[in-house]
Amino acid sequence: MIAQTPPMGWNSWDCYGAAVTEENVRRNAAYMAEHMKDCGWEYIVVDIQWSSATAVNHQYQPFSALDMDAWGRLIPAVNRFPSAAGGKGFRPLADYIHSLGLKFGIHIMRGMPREAAHRHLPIEGSSYGCHEAADPNSICAWNPDMYGLKCEEPAAKAYYESIFRLYAEWGVDYVKCDDIAREYPHCRKEIEVISQARLDCGRDIVLSLSPGPAPLEQAEHLKKWSNLWRITDDFWDSWPLLLNMFERLEKWCVHAGPGHWPDADMLPLGALRQCDSPEEWTHFTRDEQRTMMTLWCIARSPLMMGGEMTKNDDWTLKLLTNRDVLAMETESWCAHPLWTTEEESVWLAPRKDGAGFYLAFFNLTGQSRTVRVSEKELEHCPATVKDLWNGAETAFDGSVFAEIPAHGAAVYLCK
Amino acid sequence: MIAQTPPMGWNSWDCYGAAVTEENVRRNAAYMAEHMKDCGWEYIVVDIQWSSATAVNHQYQPFSALDMDAWGRLIPAVNRFPSAAGGKGFRPLADYIHSLGLKFGIHIMRGMPREAAHRHLPIEGSSYGCHEAADPNSICAWNPDMYGLKCEEPAAKAYYESIFRLYAEWGVDYVKCDDIAREYPHCRKEIEVISQARLDCGRDIVLSLSPGPAPLEQAEHLKKWSNLWRITDDFWDSWPLLLNMFERLEKWCVHAGPGHWPDADMLPLGALRQCDSPEEWTHFTRDEQRTMMTLWCIARSPLMMGGEMTKNDDWTLKLLTNRDVLAMETESWCAHPLWTTEEESVWLAPRKDGAGFYLAFFNLTGQSRTVRVSEKELEHCPATVKDLWNGAETAFDGSVFAEIPAHGAAVYLCK
Amino acid sequence: MIAQTPPMGWNSWDCYGAAVTEENVRRNAAYMAEHMKDCGWEYIVVDIQWSSATAVNHQYQPFSALDMDAWGRLIPAVNRFPSAAGGKGFRPLADYIHSLGLKFGIHIMRGMPREAAHRHLPIEGSSYGCHEAADPNSICAWNPDMYGLKCEEPAAKAYYESIFRLYAEWGVDYVKCDDIAREYPHCRKEIEVISQARLDCGRDIVLSLSPGPAPLEQAEHLKKWSNLWRITDDFWDSWPLLLNMFERLEKWCVHAGPGHWPDADMLPLGALRQCDSPEEWTHFTRDEQRTMMTLWCIARSPLMMGGEMTKNDDWTLKLLTNRDVLAMETESWCAHPLWTTEEESVWLAPRKDGAGFYLAFFNLTGQSRTVRVSEKELEHCPATVKDLWNGAETAFDGSVFAEIPAHGAAVYLCK
Amino acid sequence: MIAQTPPMGWNSWDCYGAAVTEENVRRNAAYMAEHMKDCGWEYIVVDIQWSSATAVNHQYQPFSALDMDAWGRLIPAVNRFPSAAGGKGFRPLADYIHSLGLKFGIHIMRGMPREAAHRHLPIEGSSYGCHEAADPNSICAWNPDMYGLKCEEPAAKAYYESIFRLYAEWGVDYVKCDDIAREYPHCRKEIEVISQARLDCGRDIVLSLSPGPAPLEQAEHLKKWSNLWRITDDFWDSWPLLLNMFERLEKWCVHAGPGHWPDADMLPLGALRQCDSPEEWTHFTRDEQRTMMTLWCIARSPLMMGGEMTKNDDWTLKLLTNRDVLAMETESWCAHPLWTTEEESVWLAPRKDGAGFYLAFFNLTGQSRTVRVSEKELEHCPATVKDLWNGAETAFDGSVFAEIPAHGAAVYLCK
Repeated sequence: MIAQTPPMGWNSWDCYGAAVTEENVRRNAAYMAEHMKDCGWEYIVVDIQWSSATAVNHQYQPFSALDMDAWGRLIPAVNRFPSAAGGKGFRPLADYIHSLGLKFGIHIMRGMPREAAHRHLPIEGSSYGCHEAADPNSICAWNPDMYGLKCEEPAAKAYYESIFRLYAEWGVDYVKCDDIAREYPHCRKEIEVISQARLDCGRDIVLSLSPGPAPLEQAEHLKKWSNLWRITDDFWDSWPLLLNMFERLEKWCVHAGPGHWPDADMLPLGALRQCDSPEEWTHFTRDEQRTMMTLWCIARSPLMMGGEMTKNDDWTLKLLTNRDVLAMETESWCAHPLWTTEEESVWLAPRKDGAGFYLAFFNLTGQSRTVRVSEKELEHCPATVKDLWNGAETAFDGSVFAEIPAHGAAVYLCK
Repeated sequence: MIAQTPPMGWNSWDCYGAAVTEENVRRNAAYMAEHMKDCGWEYIVVDIQWSSATAVNHQYQPFSALDMDAWGRLIPAVNRFPSAAGGKGFRPLADYIHSLGLKFGIHIMRGMPREAAHRHLPIEGSSYGCHEAADPNSICAWNPDMYGLKCEEPAAKAYYESIFRLYAEWGVDYVKCDDIAREYPHCRKEIEVISQARLDCGRDIVLSLSPGPAPLEQAEHLKKWSNLWRITDDFWDSWPLLLNMFERLEKWCVHAGPGHWPDADMLPLGALRQCDSPEEWTHFTRDEQRTMMTLWCIARSPLMMGGEMTKNDDWTLKLLTNRDVLAMETESWCAHPLWTTEEESVWLAPRKDGAGFYLAFFNLTGQSRTVRVSEKELEHCPATVKDLWNGAETAFDGSVFAEIPAHGAAVYLCK
Repeated sequence: MIAQTPPMGWNSWDCYGAAVTEENVRRNAAYMAEHMKDCGWEYIVVDIQWSSATAVNHQYQPFSALDMDAWGRLIPAVNRFPSAAGGKGFRPLADYIHSLGLKFGIHIMRGMPREAAHRHLPIEGSSYGCHEAADPNSICAWNPDMYGLKCEEPAAKAYYESIFRLYAEWGVDYVKCDDIAREYPHCRKEIEVISQARLDCGRDIVLSLSPGPAPLEQAEHLKKWSNLWRITDDFWDSWPLLLNMFERLEKWCVHAGPGHWPDADMLPLGALRQCDSPEEWTHFTRDEQRTMMTLWCIARSPLMMGGEMTKNDDWTLKLLTNRDVLAMETESWCAHPLWTTEEESVWLAPRKDGAGFYLAFFNLTGQSRTVRVSEKELEHCPATVKDLWNGAETAFDGSVFAEIPAHGAAVYLCK
Repeated sequence: MIAQTPPMGWNSWDCYGAAVTEENVRRNAAYMAEHMKDCGWEYIVVDIQWSSATAVNHQYQPFSALDMDAWGRLIPAVNRFPSAAGGKGFRPLADYIHSLGLKFGIHIMRGMPREAAHRHLPIEGSSYGCHEAADPNSICAWNPDMYGLKCEEPAAKAYYESIFRLYAEWGVDYVKCDDIAREYPHCRKEIEVISQARLDCGRDIVLSLSPGPAPLEQAEHLKKWSNLWRITDDFWDSWPLLLNMFERLEKWCVHAGPGHWPDADMLPLGALRQCDSPEEWTHFTRDEQRTMMTLWCIARSPLMMGGEMTKNDDWTLKLLTNRDVLAMETESWCAHPLWTTEEESVWLAPRKDGAGFYLAFFNLTGQSRTVRVSEKELEHCPATVKDLWNGAETAFDGSVFAEIPAHGAAVYLCK
């Protein structure tokens, strides 16, 4: 089973937008291999617009030329990904990443380039033309490049098979498919065709669906056909967005499990928005960063670091590599909030092995606050309580409580 | 003022769909000039897809090639409109129609051909490119050809001016602009830019907006910027659609006036759907046809004959040329229903000159039915009552009443 | 036919709220007979809470005692209506009003007093009890006194017949039934039962339904079962409410006709809110008052003066008795707006006798403004134009226009 | 803490409707004490209309007399509850039930009897009158007896305190408050006032809110102010209602915890609807009954037996007293579905003590079906698997699977 536990990795969007380069990617991969791999960090994902020679920031350019092969399949722009020269595509970059012991992922949009349909290009490995697969009325609301496909048509199936064949040849391990997760009901069939082409391509490829919010009432469809799916629109380093995630993760928490993970989006930490301004740093306070890491881990959300990692300071690296906290992603299950009021939230997650349970405290207010859970509320009397961010271990005497700073968090292993 | 009274004419859609030819148009124009012109019939309108060389019926073809000039302006397909050869466009056909004493109209879609934007064609008479005017996310829900324009941009204004300049050169008197009338609010600005380009082109051109239903709450915007606008989706020869028109015309009737007319759509009479089946004839009964003509005339809807007129039988031609009935279009005003129940509808419209009023009876049931209006309900005691379909004139003695056949109508001039 | 033209009269609510007394009513009736009757003013209507001994202003009192007879029928509170003593009800007051040549109206709520049901009182003229007619779940959202009836039950029919029998005995000519006109669909049947009890009571009684907004899609039901119905919630002397009436009357204008009139509510003119403050005077400017009178008259709304008439100043009395303006209520038909923009509205109504038409101009802005209608827009070239507020008559020379003050109006007879 | 685990008991509604008698109650209490108490069954609850002398079945009677004391507080109808004679209320019945080692509950409607307000009765222990507390516009949509209270008023607080004072005197342990749980937002404050009066009355009283569906977005308010609340409208013995409960319990499962329990409603088992027909028996098949018990127990819903227990057959009694299954109510936590498709549902709940986890299989189809969960999906490899309905214990070898009959269930303890 792929994605037996929540995927962990790095994604280029938060720091490089539509303009990421091969050099950016290689640098971050090398950093991850050296500093984070042994804590479970694994995927390196190149986000949107890698086939555009002219992208320079987070903006999309209407009617711009995209690099594609003779079958209407997008290929990396060589000016940005030099190793792709000579038709080699992402293969050399994937090889490099694999050589580091990591895995390689790419972003795609559902559908095909509009130009491929207008030019009536042939579909690789089939007798169809691209114009037979494309739906001229299926476009993306925020990106001007693609047409969605007529997924009832064999031509559409042929096209999606042709691209996953290419991705398998390249050595892709992870595909983030965009313009699809919140597009129910009209993209329901398109999700199935894409997912099946992926399963049939001969290589294990994790399938991630974006953007959110994916509809909660489609949870079983998402669990069946994908490995992770976004539960919000794009997440950035702002407290209201982080606060909002408590409600979303509460609704989705019962659907987290092996092979299928509700995704709270990238971690906007460290050096962000480098394509726009190299001095940019996350706007989150340190307490907010701990809140985010604690919440993502106890809720078992996938973890995708969004910052330029080679600029990580020591504090940030430690935040990302606390093994006790990260253990919740692999060792806990059945997480859910005990309560979430306007002032605080308390989450609980048993360990799968029965050896105690995790308890997370969140202060949602702008002032310091004492959060407390009593034995009655826990239905339990554990022997000891270990604070996972600072390592302190104490005996239990009737309740767990702590003074939590504004927007901050604490998390404990009780056993 | 153009369209001082409701436009009357012929439109190619109901009989020839997307496949109308020059020969079809000339034949019907000649027929109108000979048989109907002296009753007020005037416009000959070529409907959708005249730039497509491959259209053969009512269907649209995605990613098909459309004929266009070097500035991304659609031009007639020469295989279907031979007189357009040599870059003469619709000018020779317009000249012929004008020579008959009639006026010439064409259909357009809002926006520009998608190919014009993808190819970055220049906009005639400006320094802009088509890709600067087109909005890659503004498409039509039912036709695959065009992109709508970014109407806040000067490039969009330049494009619309360039096409109306061409239409004025061709001698166009009437433009039916499609994919726009029900597209409020996002097409509000596009209507204004198109309408202004029309007003500035140096030729009087009637502007008709399709498809419906246009939103009632936009009535004043429609009255200001167009001459007629559709109040329903496409109307065809089916009783439920005709029955439905009573409610729609009731809501819109207060907005009919000089220069601005709510449009109940084409008259599907006589020989229809010729491109699919040359034996096709309207499915309406004769009583239903009288109901339609009576309702359209008393409500002062524009009249656009939809059938192949050279196949008209004598009864159909008489239906279309009853001068007493057609007089309601020009001599009445202030039409409205006295009542519309599930069983019947009664409409009243005074003559503008004060010389009496029109009274129309409609039987909405499937059985014969007596409809009656009393002196009290009329607030009037006219001297005489003339039946306009059969010419009979009688003295008034306290009420007007008639036995009306199923789905049938009667109409009277009371004075 | 009752209400052949729109009813005109006086109603006690705007000046006396729930606390009106017999003395108030007699004084206003005498005034109307002397000063206004010959212009068509006719009805004197006692509004809500006349059975409550304790009402003192516009407020309703929960669980207060209401005077009722042994059959659960409300009767006038004798402390407020002394002539009702000895069980004579409204008969003596009605006799007085009839002696003045006027007609008498009362307000009722749909349903019966809650106490009548809880006490299981018998229903007059039947073998039923009140508790068999009342629906314990049918209450009014804004008044605490009544239960609506189970109108499918014979007991409900019996109760409504019993009250209309009483009203016929009293000599009531007009009933304003409240808590019903906007209560579709659940009050649809109750309207029918009340209306039928009225028709069967042996006396012509006009039926008026309140409060609004009645739903437009129920227009034919309202026309069939009532004589007038409110098209808004309570109207008061505030410009935004008056401005809003243009849109409402536009939607309803096609439904005005003999026996059935959309009702724009009382005229809050002159001395208002006397029960709260004897110095109160309408907040409308004189121009706004003319706008209201002009609009109500051309749209043929019923006219119900709301102020204490004996305090009328000369200007107000003239406003209410301009015969040329009031003539629109009886001599015009088919009124509708030519247009209504954010700045102005122009309405037109032909005379029924064909002798010209009325044209009303309204300035909806806060500044003086020229309003103009051209011959083309009129579809007419009248010979003369008479200003009905100032009596000036001029020759027509291509357009009608006038400088209209802020929020003001002008109205013309063109012929 | 009251309701530390989900309350378990018997409620009179499903078998006796509005007509339950003291004799019915005593008989069932004695049965429970003898046969079920040692498995955790504890509450005996008298449902609606115990103050009505005339109730005979499940129907409500408008404008019927309800027994009340001089302060407008409802008291038991003595013809139905003889021990209440002499003003002793429910005290003798409560004493009897307590003598059996059980607890006593009653049903109330929010608000006060309408008659109490109309009669202006005084509120016990205060200087207010009932008419000052009642809101004449706050009624129940399905029961005709009561007015809700104006909860911002001190009089309302005084009334609710007066009734809970009475209940404490009677020895009530459990109050099921009706017409309130789905009445957000307007009953939000009324819930708080009722709950606070309960907390202040000097006796531990469990508060249950009905009817459902309570709104999910009010979960934290419900958890704070009540001990259990209904998540559906009335539940009866029909498969579509049972099927529907899977989705509802999935949404609510994260909110079940000590002191606050989402309530899936009574168990319609055994002899039902006895007031209408003494031969009536549950319409559920035995497999459906097991499905219900399994689902309620793993989701930790309260359990309230609805049938006449003295008519239980042996199979039904065993269903209700399987200690291994009932243990889920007290020993598990964090229950949630692994998946719920159209065909099947699988739920998982760890034991609080870490000694394994429960796994429930449900077949939602009308045919027999194999349900299977693999080691990968479990994230676990338990040693043994015990079937809790039949007691069989087997070694785990890679998956848990079973052939489940139509609409049936199985449940396992894995450790």
